[in-house]
Parts: sequence; C-alpha cells; structure tokens
Amino acid sequence: MTARWAVGVDVGGTKIAGALVGADGVVRGRTVVPTPARDGARAVLAAMAELVRALAAGTPVVGVGVGTGGVVDAATGTVLSATDLLPGWAGTDVAGELRALTGLPVRVDNDGNALALGEHHFGAGRGLRDGVYVTVGTGIGGGIVLDGVLRRGATHSAGELGHLPVPGAEGRRCSCGATGHVEAVASGPAMTSRYREVTGEQVTDLRAIAERALAGEQAASAVLAEGGAALGAALAGLANALDPQVVVLGGGVAEIGEPFLGPVERALRSAALPGPSRVALRPALLGTDAPLAGAAVLAFEGER
Amino acid sequence: MTARWAVGVDVGGTKIAGALVGADGVVRGRTVVPTPARDGARAVLAAMAELVRALAAGTPVVGVGVGTGGVVDAATGTVLSATDLLPGWAGTDVAGELRALTGLPVRVDNDGNALALGEHHFGAGRGLRDGVYVTVGTGIGGGIVLDGVLRRGATHSAGELGHLPVPGAEGRRCSCGATGHVEAVASGPAMTSRYREVTGEQVTDLRAIAERALAGEQAASAVLAEGGAALGAALAGLANALDPQVVVLGGGVAEIGEPFLGPVERALRSAALPGPSRVALRPALLGTDAPLAGAAVLAFEGER
Repeated sequence: MTARWAVGVDVGGTKIAGALVGADGVVRGRTVVPTPARDGARAVLAAMAELVRALAAGTPVVGVGVGTGGVVDAATGTVLSATDLLPGWAGTDVAGELRALTGLPVRVDNDGNALALGEHHFGAGRGLRDGVYVTVGTGIGGGIVLDGVLRRGATHSAGELGHLPVPGAEGRRCSCGATGHVEAVASGPAMTSRYREVTGEQVTDLRAIAERALAGEQAASAVLAEGGAALGAALAGLANALDPQVVVLGGGVAEIGEPFLGPVERALRSAALPGPSRVALRPALLGTDAPLAGAAVLAFEGER
Repeated sequence: MTARWAVGVDVGGTKIAGALVGADGVVRGRTVVPTPARDGARAVLAAMAELVRALAAGTPVVGVGVGTGGVVDAATGTVLSATDLLPGWAGTDVAGELRALTGLPVRVDNDGNALALGEHHFGAGRGLRDGVYVTVGTGIGGGIVLDGVLRRGATHSAGELGHLPVPGAEGRRCSCGATGHVEAVASGPAMTSRYREVTGEQVTDLRAIAERALAGEQAASAVLAEGGAALGAALAGLANALDPQVVVLGGGVAEIGEPFLGPVERALRSAALPGPSRVALRPALLGTDAPLAGAAVLAFEGER
C-alpha cells in the first residue's frame, strides 16, 4: 500500500504551521515556526521553504498546498491583498516563489477556504456535497462548498462570513470598516468588549467570560447569548439563500460550547425557513489541522 | 435554419402564463389565463395542459418547463409545499400529471429559480458564469446561479432571498413568521405599511408613494430609502459570502427606479468588502418573460 502525501502549510501573521497530510486526511509531523513577518515577504517565503523541505525530506510528496491570510487568486497562487500583519505580502506570487525555492508544485488559497476544504474532505463535512464552514475567533471567517465545489468568487473574495449583516449590530463598527456585520457582535473581541461595556469590568479574555457564564453569571450568559443569536440569525439568512446540507462551526469562540452554541442553534432554527431550518449544525472536527489538511487538498487537486 | 422551441409556463395563485420560447430566448405567443386555484390541483393542471396544447399546436416543441410558486423538487417535478393561494398544490406530481395530459416531457422548478434561469441565460446575466437574481414586489424572492449551476439546495429551498436578516428589521414580522428579514422592510407591502405608519395617510399603493418621492416629498423618499438600504445591506452580506459576478434586480418595486435603487446600490457598495463591492448591479431585462424563458431552459436542459 502506497499512501500519497502532500505538505500542507498555514501562514498567519504570527506563525507558520506545516504538516504532512495523506490523501486520506491523516496529518503527521505538525510543525510550527514564527512568521518573520516584519522581515518582509522574502523572509516569510524562506521560512516556509525551510519548513516544507524539512517535512518533505523523508517522504515523497505530490506537492505543497498553502493557506494564507488575505485575498488569494487560487488560479495563479498570488496574494492579491493582505492584512497589515503580513507587510509586503500583497502582490506576492507565493506559488511561483515557493516552487522556485522547493522544486515542488505549489497551490495557494485563502486560509478560510483551506479550512473549509479540510473540514469538507476530512472532517465534519466528510461525505457531504456541500457545507458552510464558519470559524469564530478573533474574527469570523470561513468558506463555502456547494455541490462539491469550493466557492471562490468573481474577485477571489467569497466565504467572508464575518461580514453578513444582522439585526442588533447597527452602529457597531466591523473590522472591515462597515457597520452592522456579525463579526462586530459575535467575534471574541466583540463579545469581550460588550461584556466590559455592560459590566464595567476590565475582562480581556473571552474564556473568563465563558467561565462566568458556566458558573451562572447572568451578564456573562447574556453577552454570549447575544453574540450567539446574532451569528445564528446571520447563518439562518445564509441557509435560506443557499440551503446547504451542513453548517460547521469551529474556532476558539465556538469551543466555549453551550453558552454560545445554544443561542446560535436556536436563532438559526427559528429564523430559517422550514427546509433550511433542518440543516445539520456540527462542530468542526479538525481544529488547527483543518487549514493544513485543506491546503493539502489543494495540492492533491493540483496533481490531476 | 431550424429553431428549437419549448413551452414555458409560469403558475401563480391568480394566473397561469405561458409562451413558446426558442432555444435562443425568443418568446412568442404569450398567453395568460386565470388560475382555477379554488377548484384544486386537478383543475389547475387541466388549465395548464390546455394552455400548453394551444401553444404547441402549430410548433413542434422539445418539451414543457414550468415555474411554480412553492417549494419544488426539480429532480422529480413534484411540489413539496405551496402557499394557501394554491390549495392542494403541495404533493402534486406536476411533471408526471402534465406529461400524462400533454404527452410532452415536463420539467418543473420553483418560480424564483425559473426567473433566475431566464435572466441568467437570456437577460441581464447572459454570458456570465454566476449571478444573484432578486425580484422585489409583494414579496422578495429570486434565485442564485454559481459557476453556471442553479443552486437548488439540500431541501430544494435555496434562493429565498427575502429571508436574509438585516439591521433595522428587528421586531418586524416577515411573511415567513420570523422577524428581522429584509422582506419585512423592503417589499412593496412593507414599505407601504411603513409609509402609513410614518404619515398616517391611508396610501395602499407603492406607486403612489414613488410618485410622491419623485415629486420631492420627504417622507416618501425616506421610506423608499430605508427599504432600499435594507435590501442593499442584505445583498452586501450575500455578496461578501458568494462574491458573484452580478446582482440583478427586478420586480414591480425595483421598477420604481432611483428613489429605491439608489439607496440599494449605495448600501450594497458601502457594506461589501473591496472585491464584492465592485459587483455589477443591473436591472432585470426580461420582466414577466423571465420565468417563462427560465422554465423553457429547464425543458431544453431536460432534453439532453
């Protein structure tokens, strides 16, 4: 039996993660190095190449898949725009440069898309035709797979699930500059800030708020419920539009569990039409492996 | 030169429209008859069959396509659920029954999907890979085409674009029973009702409000702007999620023009991310021909 392997890489503003991923989704050799973001794109590429070479040293791989923050043209593997966390990253031909450095075929996509591909192929969406994959943490992101096809979009921007409008978010400023988006009320920082606003207490960590909610504190429960209900309403709208088989929730905020996920589910079911209201709602299964596994899917797909 | 033809049928609670549609989108022989809705599904089918036979009498057709209100399993041509306007329609095997009555192959889909297919193939979305097709009238509906494929959904319910949540719709009751949806603030009846609420005047027709807005009346302009901005925000969210090539707006309310469409466009562009904010926004081109033309597309597709 010969397993086929690819290298999956997940590049963020603070760290680069990599692993070997089998065609069956097995992940091994997980490695994390700091992102030399302040040294510019060339340094980041060099660090990625070193990580790839180390992983591929003992195992023949079909290629490399990369998930990265920013807007990515997946057809060319070029980063079109990126956050300030990765200076000089916008405009970088990541596929071409990393191929030149490693001698391996390279595919690149947005990290939300990589995460969605990972969960779709090997995690909570395995065996299904479509799914909406949402990750809730410092921001809210994700990706959408419909009839087996990842939706990339006309400007390579699809899957920006933090920027869905919701009732109750009026006047709340979103990271994107607009107001009224779900990320402005249901992300970790948004709920932490809301809790401080309500209680006057200088809590900085959503986990502390979650613990208070689990211990029965009313204000903490209310803040998580408000954020969860907003996310549920946004997802209900998306379910009414797309009628997917499954909605998958992951990320640090989702891991809080019931005090957040309960309100998400109730709002989703009550604001969706009869058919979409029965959509499966599942927790993400792969955690931080998801973008690595999904990046590898890019490499396996590129192989054909 | 031999043109291929199909019969397109659009069934609603009050009328049945039909026409011959060429494979190039040409529509001829438009016919409208009242829907004998109160006489039950059998009577509606008989009226449809009569209309089809009359249209197909002088022209060989490849088959019949039907767009109908309600939730439709397009694979079997069966209506899964329908509004009270068509009693007994739910559960009807429209494809099978109409085929038995006419001897022609029959394909059936939801009327919003038919409209989307019509505009996509022959109207405002012609030549594009994907589009979000929205119709704004008594209700808000539509359909979504992505990468050339109409999104039908896991429960045959996709494209319900009136049921997207929007800031500002809190507590406003939607036709679906939920609150906070765009249809509850941007449909014709919603804006008419809002105008009555604001002014105390018993206006029953949105056109009268539109005329007042065009004549410079502040309250009328504000109500149309509020509805338009809500629709624009909802469409911005959808654009952020799907990043389509085009958003097409049709229906009686959209025909009001600038006092409604201006605010739609401004809200869409300002609440969408940089890429999706550049989405093309176009008026629907086919009017009431769209569902007929799209129904015919179903027949031509079924032919293969």
